[in-house]
Amino acid sequence: AAKFDPTDHPHKRLNVLTGEWVLVSPHRAKRPWQGQNESKDDTPLPSYDPDCFLCAGNKRISGDINPNYKGTFVFENDFAALQKDIPDSPEPVDPLFQLKSEKGEAHVICFSPDHSKTLPELDIPALEAVVQTWADQYRRLSSKYEWVQLFENKGAIMGCSQPHPHGQVWANSSVPTLPAKEHDQQSQYYREHGKALLLDYALKESKDGTRTIVENEHWIAVVPYWASWPFETLLLPKFACRHFHELNADRKTSLAKAIKELTIRYDNLFETSFPYSMGWHGAPTSEIKNAAWQLHAHFFPPLLRSATVKKFMVGYEMMAESQRDLTPEQAAEKLQQVSNKHYKEGKQ
Amino acid sequence: AAKFDPTDHPHKRLNVLTGEWVLVSPHRAKRPWQGQNESKDDTPLPSYDPDCFLCAGNKRISGDINPNYKGTFVFENDFAALQKDIPDSPEPVDPLFQLKSEKGEAHVICFSPDHSKTLPELDIPALEAVVQTWADQYRRLSSKYEWVQLFENKGAIMGCSQPHPHGQVWANSSVPTLPAKEHDQQSQYYREHGKALLLDYALKESKDGTRTIVENEHWIAVVPYWASWPFETLLLPKFACRHFHELNADRKTSLAKAIKELTIRYDNLFETSFPYSMGWHGAPTSEIKNAAWQLHAHFFPPLLRSATVKKFMVGYEMMAESQRDLTPEQAAEKLQQVSNKHYKEGKQ
Ligand SMILES: O=P(O)(O)O[C@H]1O[C@H](CO)[C@@H](O)[C@H](O)[C@H]1O
Ligand SMILES: O=P(O)(O)O[C@H]1O[C@H](CO)[C@@H](O)[C@H](O)[C@H]1O
Repeated sequence: AAKFDPTDHPHKRLNVLTGEWVLVSPHRAKRPWQGQNESKDDTPLPSYDPDCFLCAGNKRISGDINPNYKGTFVFENDFAALQKDIPDSPEPVDPLFQLKSEKGEAHVICFSPDHSKTLPELDIPALEAVVQTWADQYRRLSSKYEWVQLFENKGAIMGCSQPHPHGQVWANSSVPTLPAKEHDQQSQYYREHGKALLLDYALKESKDGTRTIVENEHWIAVVPYWASWPFETLLLPKFACRHFHELNADRKTSLAKAIKELTIRYDNLFETSFPYSMGWHGAPTSEIKNAAWQLHAHFFPPLLRSATVKKFMVGYEMMAESQRDLTPEQAAEKLQQVSNKHYKEGKQ
Repeated sequence: AAKFDPTDHPHKRLNVLTGEWVLVSPHRAKRPWQGQNESKDDTPLPSYDPDCFLCAGNKRISGDINPNYKGTFVFENDFAALQKDIPDSPEPVDPLFQLKSEKGEAHVICFSPDHSKTLPELDIPALEAVVQTWADQYRRLSSKYEWVQLFENKGAIMGCSQPHPHGQVWANSSVPTLPAKEHDQQSQYYREHGKALLLDYALKESKDGTRTIVENEHWIAVVPYWASWPFETLLLPKFACRHFHELNADRKTSLAKAIKELTIRYDNLFETSFPYSMGWHGAPTSEIKNAAWQLHAHFFPPLLRSATVKKFMVGYEMMAESQRDLTPEQAAEKLQQVSNKHYKEGKQ
């Protein structure tokens, strides 16, 4: 009988952070693509755009004027999905119709005054400022809310309506669905093994190396064993750390370096400004002393084969479960093989 | 103090089928859209396209020739994500690296030989043939597999690479992630209430009417109370039914009628061939006698404001939980207000 070959035979892998499976169909990468192509727009941007709502000194939709900021700049989202002062909803009576009011805040974080630069193009001091801003926002909002969601949508394909480099932070009064699953999974692993799931995982990946894209003294970024998106990565500390408040200056600097290298490799893969949604998960406010939790960032990039062909998470994926067309190890190999110097450097 | 107003104040609603929450931010619908627009391509198609892989008599990528079919036509996917004969994987040893081989099949279901017609444009006998084909495929594959996933990706925006009207069926040896959640939720409800969750829900929605889009003697389609996608709908039987094998001829005909009206309303909403992924969930093979389970179809359409502006499920949604910009009741009202006669009729 033939031997099972994970690079050829369909199989499932368990996402240990959510407890959900992903279907891996490696032979499917051979499928020719005749569907929708994304538009590729890599025209160079100016450092300042008078029509941009996020550039320093410009007027926003709200009528407010942005200050003449030099590093990062945070302001309340003009169309926030969450609001501070809302009345409590009445207790629901029917188990099939459950509703509860949700308090929160939503802010925009400009990463740099330079309209033309994305994270991989910022220098290390500028990236340190981004990390410090995340830490500051986390500290400020976690004093009021149970959950603080830092994230970045990058690229028009990811619903980002502004090329100016920026992310967001939304904070809420209850732990959302996905981090709640991660809480359950990490807690269960801690009960069974007496260790933090993601610290164990980071150290095992570091030792193995097959799925490692970037590694320095404190941080490791891997294509996780259970990646759903073709070039999904997970950025992990190699030390115990529940949230941003536990990072010292050294670890912030090494984080800035890891992010720079990871996003450079992403851009180099298809020689395009690589779109993704990324975001941070750490211990919820009331679990801040829970040793089961590890801070980590997910990068979910949609591209599959080129700058214009993405993976569609549609029918089967929406109805049944995530499905991928190349193995995580094959994806990792491609990200390992590209240069760690940005493709635009030297072209300028 | 102000009173809680679900049409204005952010809140969460519970998806009782998954046990997960969705964030509803109704005031956010006022946000102007400056991001990516989808291309709208409503150029009329010919009834036969010599370059189409799915038209009758044409050659596919595999080299096979399609028969001269008159109704529906099913063939094995030339790039199937699942395969019948694969070796078993070895038992995983590390809880952090869990993998198991997955056996299955994947087929394409052509809905009609007419290249130019989508479901809302087929007549009732043609739609009955589609329903009958779903029932036949379910019967055939459920004799071999634990899970049978019938689905349709419609529109280029949903990763559909062929305008020819078609859906797919994938079958696997284990219950995938999402139906497994629905199994848990329906089982728990049955234990607590002694009734099928979705039958209770269908009858309550039928009585209320606020979220009802289509209803006939046997079927009801609603924007569910917990909808994630802007115009998501749930199509439900108003009678006990675990899967397709329990539908008699009358109920298949009324299902064909309900699908026609629902998809006509979708097309009329933005006067475009409305893209979506839809799919059927019913009792897994080993649970086929389980009275907790009800057959149902989900429609997940991405459009938000117009034929070219979709909802992006990105940063916050990927990292935290689904978020929507109008209430399910507001979405239902819009779908109720459009005509039940297709906008193209009369234009021809
Ligand atoms: O099988 P197709 O139509 O070529 O492919 C489409 O549907 C599949 C099942 O939902 C997805 O995995 C693919 O990403 C999508 O492009
Ligand atoms: O807030 P933005 O950037 O206008 O909007 C974008 O990010 C949000 C948070 O992930 C999403 O809900 C929106 O669908 C997306 O377009």
